[in-house]
Amino acid sequence: MSLKKIGVLTGGGDAPGLNAVIRAVVKSAYNSGVEVIGLEDSFDGLIYPDKSRVLTPGDVTGILRFGGTILGTVNRGNPFAEPIVTPGGTYNYADRVLQMFEKMGLDALVCIGGDGTLAISYEFYKKGIPLVGVPKTIDNDIYGTTSCFGFDTAVSFATDAIDRLHTTAEAHRRIMVVEVMGRYAGWIALHAGVAGGADVILIPEIPYDLEKVAQCIRERDERGARFSIVVVAEGAIPKGGKLSVLSEAHGGTVERLGGAGMYCANALEPLTHKETRYVVLGHLQRGGMPTAFDRTLATRFGGKAVELLLNGQFGKMVANHPPDLVPIPLQDVVGKTKTVPLDNDLLMTARALGVGFGD
Amino acid sequence: MSLKKIGVLTGGGDAPGLNAVIRAVVKSAYNSGVEVIGLEDSFDGLIYPDKSRVLTPGDVTGILRFGGTILGTVNRGNPFAEPIVTPGGTYNYADRVLQMFEKMGLDALVCIGGDGTLAISYEFYKKGIPLVGVPKTIDNDIYGTTSCFGFDTAVSFATDAIDRLHTTAEAHRRIMVVEVMGRYAGWIALHAGVAGGADVILIPEIPYDLEKVAQCIRERDERGARFSIVVVAEGAIPKGGKLSVLSEAHGGTVERLGGAGMYCANALEPLTHKETRYVVLGHLQRGGMPTAFDRTLATRFGGKAVELLLNGQFGKMVANHPPDLVPIPLQDVVGKTKTVPLDNDLLMTARALGVGFGD
Amino acid sequence: MSLKKIGVLTGGGDAPGLNAVIRAVVKSAYNSGVEVIGLEDSFDGLIYPDKSRVLTPGDVTGILRFGGTILGTVNRGNPFAEPIVTPGGTYNYADRVLQMFEKMGLDALVCIGGDGTLAISYEFYKKGIPLVGVPKTIDNDIYGTTSCFGFDTAVSFATDAIDRLHTTAEAHRRIMVVEVMGRYAGWIALHAGVAGGADVILIPEIPYDLEKVAQCIRERDERGARFSIVVVAEGAIPKGGKLSVLSEAHGGTVERLGGAGMYCANALEPLTHKETRYVVLGHLQRGGMPTAFDRTLATRFGGKAVELLLNGQFGKMVANHPPDLVPIPLQDVVGKTKTVPLDNDLLMTARALGVGFGD
Amino acid sequence: MSLKKIGVLTGGGDAPGLNAVIRAVVKSAYNSGVEVIGLEDSFDGLIYPDKSRVLTPGDVTGILRFGGTILGTVNRGNPFAEPIVTPGGTYNYADRVLQMFEKMGLDALVCIGGDGTLAISYEFYKKGIPLVGVPKTIDNDIYGTTSCFGFDTAVSFATDAIDRLHTTAEAHRRIMVVEVMGRYAGWIALHAGVAGGADVILIPEIPYDLEKVAQCIRERDERGARFSIVVVAEGAIPKGGKLSVLSEAHGGTVERLGGAGMYCANALEPLTHKETRYVVLGHLQRGGMPTAFDRTLATRFGGKAVELLLNGQFGKMVANHPPDLVPIPLQDVVGKTKTVPLDNDLLMTARALGVGFGD
Repeated sequence: MSLKKIGVLTGGGDAPGLNAVIRAVVKSAYNSGVEVIGLEDSFDGLIYPDKSRVLTPGDVTGILRFGGTILGTVNRGNPFAEPIVTPGGTYNYADRVLQMFEKMGLDALVCIGGDGTLAISYEFYKKGIPLVGVPKTIDNDIYGTTSCFGFDTAVSFATDAIDRLHTTAEAHRRIMVVEVMGRYAGWIALHAGVAGGADVILIPEIPYDLEKVAQCIRERDERGARFSIVVVAEGAIPKGGKLSVLSEAHGGTVERLGGAGMYCANALEPLTHKETRYVVLGHLQRGGMPTAFDRTLATRFGGKAVELLLNGQFGKMVANHPPDLVPIPLQDVVGKTKTVPLDNDLLMTARALGVGFGD
Repeated sequence: MSLKKIGVLTGGGDAPGLNAVIRAVVKSAYNSGVEVIGLEDSFDGLIYPDKSRVLTPGDVTGILRFGGTILGTVNRGNPFAEPIVTPGGTYNYADRVLQMFEKMGLDALVCIGGDGTLAISYEFYKKGIPLVGVPKTIDNDIYGTTSCFGFDTAVSFATDAIDRLHTTAEAHRRIMVVEVMGRYAGWIALHAGVAGGADVILIPEIPYDLEKVAQCIRERDERGARFSIVVVAEGAIPKGGKLSVLSEAHGGTVERLGGAGMYCANALEPLTHKETRYVVLGHLQRGGMPTAFDRTLATRFGGKAVELLLNGQFGKMVANHPPDLVPIPLQDVVGKTKTVPLDNDLLMTARALGVGFGD
Repeated sequence: MSLKKIGVLTGGGDAPGLNAVIRAVVKSAYNSGVEVIGLEDSFDGLIYPDKSRVLTPGDVTGILRFGGTILGTVNRGNPFAEPIVTPGGTYNYADRVLQMFEKMGLDALVCIGGDGTLAISYEFYKKGIPLVGVPKTIDNDIYGTTSCFGFDTAVSFATDAIDRLHTTAEAHRRIMVVEVMGRYAGWIALHAGVAGGADVILIPEIPYDLEKVAQCIRERDERGARFSIVVVAEGAIPKGGKLSVLSEAHGGTVERLGGAGMYCANALEPLTHKETRYVVLGHLQRGGMPTAFDRTLATRFGGKAVELLLNGQFGKMVANHPPDLVPIPLQDVVGKTKTVPLDNDLLMTARALGVGFGD
Repeated sequence: MSLKKIGVLTGGGDAPGLNAVIRAVVKSAYNSGVEVIGLEDSFDGLIYPDKSRVLTPGDVTGILRFGGTILGTVNRGNPFAEPIVTPGGTYNYADRVLQMFEKMGLDALVCIGGDGTLAISYEFYKKGIPLVGVPKTIDNDIYGTTSCFGFDTAVSFATDAIDRLHTTAEAHRRIMVVEVMGRYAGWIALHAGVAGGADVILIPEIPYDLEKVAQCIRERDERGARFSIVVVAEGAIPKGGKLSVLSEAHGGTVERLGGAGMYCANALEPLTHKETRYVVLGHLQRGGMPTAFDRTLATRFGGKAVELLLNGQFGKMVANHPPDLVPIPLQDVVGKTKTVPLDNDLLMTARALGVGFGD
C-alpha cells in the first residue's frame, strides 16, 4: 500500500510535547508527499464529521514550544461500552470509527496517547486499521519505553518547586511536604526528589512507615538541619494500610478531599513536633512549555511514527531505547504499567546519599 | 549620636528579597564604618545571647539572589503577652529586649517585616530604641508604600502558573481555578490575573456572585472559547456570605481544609456544566529567587534604611513612592491595611478588557 | 466626534509587551463599540492597501504572553525624506498616509513606538490625524515616562545572564564582562548590574577611567574575591576618549566589530593580570516572553490609549507616573532622551554598597 | 584494600552539575565510612599543601543546584611538560603529585573533568594512583558515554535563546544566526536547533555550502515565511575551506575576533538580501543552575564513582549507557572524540522535517 493520507489524534490527559509530535508528524509526512488530517478530541475526530481538518506545515508553525494540543483531547472511560449518538444517528462505537476511517479516505493513523488511548488503538488495529502508537505519559509509567516526552518537563517543574520550598522551609525551620504526580509509579517523585535534594521520598512502590519518616527527620534535626523536605507521590501509601481518602489523579478534583501530601503533613507534625506545610503541585506539572529535552524527544517520536507508517510497520508503538527509537508491538504494551524497580540505579544512589524512603 | 553598631532582623513570613535587604544593610553600613549585628529569628536575637552574630560583607556575598533569610524568621503571636523564659531567667518581653539592646552595645536597629513586626518595632521605638522599619509583604497590603519586594516575585510565579494552566485548560476545555495569596487584599490576584490573561478575577475587596461568574463563563463559551481561567485570592468571599471554611494564610495548613479555590471550583462545575479543576499555589509564591525587580527594590530599601539611621531619622518606615523612596512615620502605618481601591487603574483597565469580577 | 474605527500600529525595534498593548487596544476598543484596524509594519499599513486587517478579540487571543508584534515592525530612517513608490503610483509620504487614513475611514490612531515613531506620529498629529502615542523602549530612555514595557523583561534577562556568568567566573577566577543594551542611557546596565550583584557598572552617563576600574578589581582580589563581574552598557565610553569602533545598536551587525564589552575586556586583562572573558547579550534582551510586570504595564498602556481616544485627548503620549498613567503632550517628549541622573537613587545606593562606576 | 580516604577534584572548563557530582561523592563516601578530601583547582590540590580541605556532608549542603564548582578548576595545557615550582622547591609534575597523594594518606581519587583531565588521570592511574574518572563536557563529545551532565543545561539555555530570537526575527523579518558551543562536535547545535525549531543547523561534522544555506532561506521566503533561524556550532566550517579566523573555544576571548556566527551572518546577508543579525551565546551556555536532568545525572555519576572505588574498579570512567551507568576503561576513552554520526537518529529526523544542513 502506498500511503496517501493519514490521520493524527491525541488522547488522554495532555502532556507538554504533544504539539511537538503533531508538528513532526505533519512536517515529515508532508515532505514525503503524505497528506495529514488532524482528528480533534481523540477518536471523536473519527465520529463527528466536523471534528477533523487538514493540517499543513503552515498550520503547525510555532507550535513546537507550546504545551497542550492543538487537536484537543478527551479523557473518557471505555468508549466501546456505549453507543455513539450523533445528529446523523446512533452507532456502535467501533463500527462508526471504522466506517468514518474509510469514508475519510485515510490510509493509516498516528495515535498519540497514554495506556488508555493505546489500548483503544490496539483494538482498532486488530479490527483492521493500520496505525502506529506514540506513548504519552507524564508519570513515565508506560511499559516498554524508558521515557516519554512530558516527563522531563514535569520533573523540571517539580524540581523548581522543591527549590522554592527549600528557601521558605529553611527560613521557618519547617517540614515541607510536596505532593507530585504518580498514582501507580514513583518516577516523578524519585527524579524530582533527587534533583531537588529532598530528604525523604515516598513512592507507591515502597509503602512507607510514618515513624521511619519521622525518625529520618529527627536525625536530621540532631545533625543541625533546620528543615526537611518530603516529596510524596500522589499514589504513595502507608505500610499495611490504605489512605481512606485519595487525591484524584493528577491534581485536585472538586469532589474529593485529602491526598497523600495532606495526609503525610498531618501525620508528621505530631510525630516530629515541627511546623509542617504541604503543597500539591497538581495540574501545574502537566502544563507549560515543554523542556528542550521533551521537544527533541517528541519530535523524534513524531518523525519515527511516520517512518514506521511509510515502512508498513503497523500495530507498533514507538519506544525510546536510548540512544535509539524502536518499534515494539502494541500487544506487548497494553495493560501493563512500568513501576520503579526496587534496584533502580537512581533509587540505589539516593539511598547511598542518605535519602529516606520510609522503609 | 554617632552610629557605631546596628542590629538587623527579619520577622514574619519569609519573602523573596529579604536577603537582598540584609546584604544592602551590611554593605552600606560597613562602607560607612558601622558594624552590623545579625539578629536571628526576628526579636529572638535580642532575647537569647546565642542568637546573634557579626555580619561582614563577606558573610553576605552571593545571598542577593537567594530566597528566604539567612537570619531566620519567626511568625509568632503577640510577644508582649507572655513572659520570656530563658536558661538565665524569666523576663518581661519588652524589658528583656531593651536590656539586651543596651548590653550588646547597639545604637539602632533595622527591622524588616510585615505589619506584625512593624507594630512590635513601633512599640520598641516608643520605648526608646532608635530604629527604622523596612516593609515586607508578599500580599502588597502594607499601608503607605506603593509596593514591596517579594510582590513582583509572587506575581511572576503566579503568572507563570496561570500560563501553564492555560494550555491544559484549553486542551481539555475546562475551567481552571487558581487560588493565589491575598487574605485581605487582592493585589496578587489582580496583577497575576491581568498578566496571565485570566477571564475572571475574584478579590476580597469585591464580594462575588457565583451566578455572575458562571454567566461570564457561559458567555465565553457562546463566543467559542474552549476554556476559562478563574483567579481567586484566598480571601475572596461570595456576596452576602462567608466561607464556612477558610484556607489558612499563605498556603495549606494541615488542620483545615477547603479554601477559596476549592469552594469556587466546587460551585462552578454544576453552574456551568464544565469540567472544573483547581490548584492552590500556596507556599510556592513566597519561595524561590527574587526577580530582578525585587532584588533592586530590596537593595534600595536596605540602603535607604542605613541612610535614614545615619541621618538620625528614627521611627520611620522606608516607603516606595516611585520614583523615590521616602521615610514615613511608623505610627502612620501600623494597624492599617492597603486594599485595592475600586477605582484602581489596573482594575478599571481589566474591566474595560472584559475581565469579570463577579459583581 | 464619536469614535467608530481606529488603527493601531507598532514601529521601531520590537520589545516584549507590544502584543500585550495591541491586545488591550483591541479588546477595550471592541468593548466600547469601536472597530480596530491593525496596520502592518508601522506606517506601511497606511501606505500599502494590502497591509492592514480588521482585528477582533478573537485575533488577539493568547498573544498577551508572546514577544514580538503580530503587526510586524520596521525601523527605517526618516520616511518624510523620500517619495513612496507603490504599484499604484508615486506619492509624497505625508500625503499618502493622510489620504489612506481618510480612505480607510479611520477616526484615530494608536501609535506604539520609540522616539522615532513618536516623532513621526507627532508630525501626523500636526497634519490633522487624531492620535495617541504609546512609548516603547527597551533602553528605558524615552522622556516623560518613568518606565516602559520591555525594560523589565530586558533587565530580567540581563540579570539572569549575570547570575550565570557568576558561577563560571568564580570557578575560573576570572573577570567576566557583560555588554548590555543602552546606547545613550545606562538604565539596563544600572538595574541589571545591581540586581545581578555586579562589581563594576559602566554607563554612558559616566565616562570611565580604565585604571580606576582595574583598581576596583585589584582591591576585590586583595579582599579575597576570586572573580569580578563588570557590566557595561553598549554606549559607555572611556573618559576623555571615544571608542574607535562602536557596536551597532542592540546587538551585532555584520559589518562592524568591536563593542564596549570587547573593548573593556581587552583593556582589563593586561591591567589586572586576570583572565578576562566577555559576552554581548545583544538581541537576546529584546526577545522572549514579557515578564508579568511588563504584561501588566503594557496592558494598562493599551487600555489608557483607547480611553484617551474615547475622551478626545489627542496628540498625547501615555506616560507612566506611578501609581498613575497620565497623558503628556507629544511635543514635550519628542527629541529628548531620558538619561540616568547622577543623583539617581539606585545609582547612589549602588555606590553606597561599593559598586564601582569607573570614576 | 579497604578505602579510608579519597580525594575529589574538578578539572577543565566548568559545567553545570560539577557541584552535584562533588556532593554525591561526599555524601555517599561519608555514608560508607570514607573520608573525602576536596582538592582545589584540579591537580593543584595535589601540588600545593594549602589547596585541599576535608569535605563533610555539611560542606556540600545546598550546592546541588549551583553551577560552577566549589573546588575551583583550571584549564591548563600539558602539565607534564613543565616543572612545578612551589615555595618548598621545584619538582617534576608527576613525582610531586604521586608524593603528595601518598603524603596526604589518600587511597584513591575521583577525577571529574573533560578529555584533558581524563588523559592526565589516566597517566596517573598508570603510575599507580587508584582512581575513577567522571566525564564532564558541555559539548557532549567525550567518547564512550551517551551523555554528560552539563549538556542538557547548555541545550536548554540555547533553546531558550532561540525561542527569544524567534520573536524578534519574526517581527523584523530577519535572519537570526545563533552561534552555540561545539568546536569538534555539533551536539548542542543539533539538539538546540531541533528543540528551538531552527530552519538551518550547521555543525562541524557537515561542512556547509553557503549557497545551499541561502537557497534554503529563499525557499522559506517563497513559502511565505517572514524570517529564518540559523544555528551554527562554533566549529562549523564552510565546505572546502576554513575560517580564517576562529572563535575561541566556548565564547569570546579578548584577542581574537570573528567566529562562525559572524562569518555566516556576514555571508548570508548579500546572498539573501535579508537583514541578518547574529548572537554568540558563549559563556552563558556553561553557567547557571543545572537542569533537573543534569542534577540527577551528575548525582548518579558521583554515586557510581564511589561505588566503583569501593569495589576496587580503578582506571575506569563512569559512562552513561541508558538506562544504566557502566564502567569503561579510561584507555578506551582518552584521545577520542564523539562526533555526530551522519546517520544519527535526530539528524535524520531533522532532515525529514525539512531542516537544512547546508549540504
